[in-house]
Amino acid sequence: METKTPKQSFTTVTDMVLPSETNPLNNLFGGELLARMDRAASIAARRHCRRIVVTASVNHVAFNRMVPLGSVVTIEAQVTRAFKTSMEVHMDVWTEDRESGERTKANEAIYSFVAVDDTGQPVQVPAIHPESEEEKNRYDGALRRKQLSLVLAGKMKASEATELRALFED
Amino acid sequence: METKTPKQSFTTVTDMVLPSETNPLNNLFGGELLARMDRAASIAARRHCRRIVVTASVNHVAFNRMVPLGSVVTIEAQVTRAFKTSMEVHMDVWTEDRESGERTKANEAIYSFVAVDDTGQPVQVPAIHPESEEEKNRYDGALRRKQLSLVLAGKMKASEATELRALFED
Amino acid sequence: METKTPKQSFTTVTDMVLPSETNPLNNLFGGELLARMDRAASIAARRHCRRIVVTASVNHVAFNRMVPLGSVVTIEAQVTRAFKTSMEVHMDVWTEDRESGERTKANEAIYSFVAVDDTGQPVQVPAIHPESEEEKNRYDGALRRKQLSLVLAGKMKASEATELRALFED
Amino acid sequence: METKTPKQSFTTVTDMVLPSETNPLNNLFGGELLARMDRAASIAARRHCRRIVVTASVNHVAFNRMVPLGSVVTIEAQVTRAFKTSMEVHMDVWTEDRESGERTKANEAIYSFVAVDDTGQPVQVPAIHPESEEEKNRYDGALRRKQLSLVLAGKMKASEATELRALFED
Amino acid sequence: METKTPKQSFTTVTDMVLPSETNPLNNLFGGELLARMDRAASIAARRHCRRIVVTASVNHVAFNRMVPLGSVVTIEAQVTRAFKTSMEVHMDVWTEDRESGERTKANEAIYSFVAVDDTGQPVQVPAIHPESEEEKNRYDGALRRKQLSLVLAGKMKASEATELRALFED
Amino acid sequence: METKTPKQSFTTVTDMVLPSETNPLNNLFGGELLARMDRAASIAARRHCRRIVVTASVNHVAFNRMVPLGSVVTIEAQVTRAFKTSMEVHMDVWTEDRESGERTKANEAIYSFVAVDDTGQPVQVPAIHPESEEEKNRYDGALRRKQLSLVLAGKMKASEATELRALFED
Repeated sequence: METKTPKQSFTTVTDMVLPSETNPLNNLFGGELLARMDRAASIAARRHCRRIVVTASVNHVAFNRMVPLGSVVTIEAQVTRAFKTSMEVHMDVWTEDRESGERTKANEAIYSFVAVDDTGQPVQVPAIHPESEEEKNRYDGALRRKQLSLVLAGKMKASEATELRALFED
Repeated sequence: METKTPKQSFTTVTDMVLPSETNPLNNLFGGELLARMDRAASIAARRHCRRIVVTASVNHVAFNRMVPLGSVVTIEAQVTRAFKTSMEVHMDVWTEDRESGERTKANEAIYSFVAVDDTGQPVQVPAIHPESEEEKNRYDGALRRKQLSLVLAGKMKASEATELRALFED
Repeated sequence: METKTPKQSFTTVTDMVLPSETNPLNNLFGGELLARMDRAASIAARRHCRRIVVTASVNHVAFNRMVPLGSVVTIEAQVTRAFKTSMEVHMDVWTEDRESGERTKANEAIYSFVAVDDTGQPVQVPAIHPESEEEKNRYDGALRRKQLSLVLAGKMKASEATELRALFED
Repeated sequence: METKTPKQSFTTVTDMVLPSETNPLNNLFGGELLARMDRAASIAARRHCRRIVVTASVNHVAFNRMVPLGSVVTIEAQVTRAFKTSMEVHMDVWTEDRESGERTKANEAIYSFVAVDDTGQPVQVPAIHPESEEEKNRYDGALRRKQLSLVLAGKMKASEATELRALFED
Repeated sequence: METKTPKQSFTTVTDMVLPSETNPLNNLFGGELLARMDRAASIAARRHCRRIVVTASVNHVAFNRMVPLGSVVTIEAQVTRAFKTSMEVHMDVWTEDRESGERTKANEAIYSFVAVDDTGQPVQVPAIHPESEEEKNRYDGALRRKQLSLVLAGKMKASEATELRALFED
Repeated sequence: METKTPKQSFTTVTDMVLPSETNPLNNLFGGELLARMDRAASIAARRHCRRIVVTASVNHVAFNRMVPLGSVVTIEAQVTRAFKTSMEVHMDVWTEDRESGERTKANEAIYSFVAVDDTGQPVQVPAIHPESEEEKNRYDGALRRKQLSLVLAGKMKASEATELRALFED
């Protein structure tokens, strides 16, 4: 199975914030952004493996900036690392001010997906070959995040999560 | 400001999985479930503080079970702990088999919300008084999760996250 | 076939009123509430019979109170009585004021459902055993409502609707 | 205030049944049809009074025929009678077979609306002058249905509902 | 195959403009109107041929008038001419002022559809017999529009589009 | 007012085809694609002028290829030419095969937009400076299309549409 680069899965989803997606302060609902990110990330994962993909997990997501009604929101997604049957996808979420055109990063998020066949059974995916410095950093971080995910799910002891422990030792 | 119990914010959201919400395997989209959970959790947060609430963060969420088309999905949400202007909400997600009526836990998830006034400024919320053993455990865990959230956001050094470090020391 | 109690089908559906569901006065469309009630009641009916259910009729519904944008609406549904292949479902609709938390009953409604198999043929459903005083009253009323329904559909003469006639004799 | 005829409010709403509106048997959800009828009837009521209208009540509705995915559904609505600030609207619902083009009546339904000003206060509406035999029958029936509605709401004693009692006396 | 008249496919679609369909000026999105017209025209095409129909092309559409939130929009569609396996559908779009009841033509548009069988293969459709003067004019114009469509698609040389050239010769 | 290049308005909208957007052959509805293109093109127009934009017209659009359920659809939009207060936007629509990853052009389309202020009055927009050969060709073609649009709207005589006549003279 051929190795791929993160760029080969790069996906851009651009859309406006509509009135039916906003809360009483006229900002985009957090849940709506989570759903849009799921669609963007799943397209990136699918572009990597050319298979049906299902969402496996969502990493911690912080909503630091409100996204007002009428904003243009751009989600840029790409696969950072592939494990045996799963893929980690990194996303940057940008909002764009209508008048100045200024782009501001509203969020970063990481979702994981599993590739499956038509019966829902996991299938193997191509490995990732990171190229840029940023891609290499994200590639390395993916293992730590996978360990954190296993620890939080009770499937790995914290004491065995060697990559992760390093974070908490000074 | 009067202290409240987790039960006072308890919220049940029940709904079916419709065709427009499913992926090619006829299971509920992960993103759709994330959006439904945001709505359920925000109602619980609002019941606690009687204010407008906005999603602040989503904890790590794992999707362990597929939720097929036609299932009945029940989300039970309640506030686990209140900080100065924010609240942590815990959710259990149940699916129900149509024929046997058997209920299976599909997910657990934790979202955080900030209470705001009409201009979007954070406002103080009532404290929580946990009653049951499970409520007390979740109350204690909330501090660890808040530290993890701050570490991941680069707003706290891992070495200062005393509650969190304990997890990785054996 | 085992008898069930109304409580076994009890269903709670909670949701907010969103901008896309409101009329020019910023209140929930009547039609939107009718559709939400249909979904809540059909889940209750399905919980009673563990079958596919289809809406058979809607009793007279009065909209006495406006439900403003941003309200939390809770629909509580439970089966009141089962006939051979059909079930009557009673619903209470509550709205909740965001600031005071005060719950107000906005509507009561009664829908009927038929249980069907995969080909759409009616199938038998379990009988109901009412327990509380209120459940017994609703159980008795269900027969009158069924007669009214048959009279209105021209399938029973008003003079034969013995339960119903009693209402109009003083 | 000028009198109007039922024809002046006549409204035709035609649409297809889409996949997102169907139940597990691939038929239109009852709740979805209730919502469509509310929109059609409200347009007819608005054409009669040229005001904002809000749904006041829904008469007993029976769902006699399943409406399969892909059908064309036509709702024909017109005002049958106007009271001081309210209007009764009658609807015929037709489905159309794609291959034969045959039109079948799927439902009849009666909804009531109140005309309101921008603050939600009821305002007076024009009277109706029925022309055809069928329009006159519906006009007469409207008073009986209004009495039934008042009796069911506990706002009129059954013994005072003179029009209605006649139905049950043989 | 029996010839049909334009009237036999006449279709009326009436609906309100809802908040979720409007732009920042509170007018109906152009794209939303294009989608509604596609549904109305496809019902008319289907009524003509009693087959599955798929959109083949959209003629030039100009949006001359804004359609404000809360307007009632009526689309009247009918087949103007049938070719071997395709049909041209003409639409008038009307908006209605709530207070005066005045109807204004907002748009005219022309869409084309192809009739297909269950595998997506084109199938023959009945011919059209225009009756009124306006129907005859539209019938004649349909050939010019078909030629323009072929020229624009590069499937016919402008010099061979005899009907079309006449337009540009004075 | 500063001149801009087509690249400065370049917009990519990527999304999947969901079940609720498909016709009985499981292909994307033409009307749904028209609506998606309107949103993509309006974002490009807005990026050019930094104003509210409203759809002015849609050029002839041909639907040559069916877009099946589950496809990934990518719309690439950019402004080709700016007139005084209006902009022409060109779009390429691509579909992507899930298994092979092969990209196929499904459509090209041209929409026009007018820039307006908060009261809906047209306002001036920056001029376009085309750079590549393709951008220059589209820039030149825009004038012909504008003339065709004026002729079709009856606002210009065909004999005066000098750019356009050239097309029909051999």
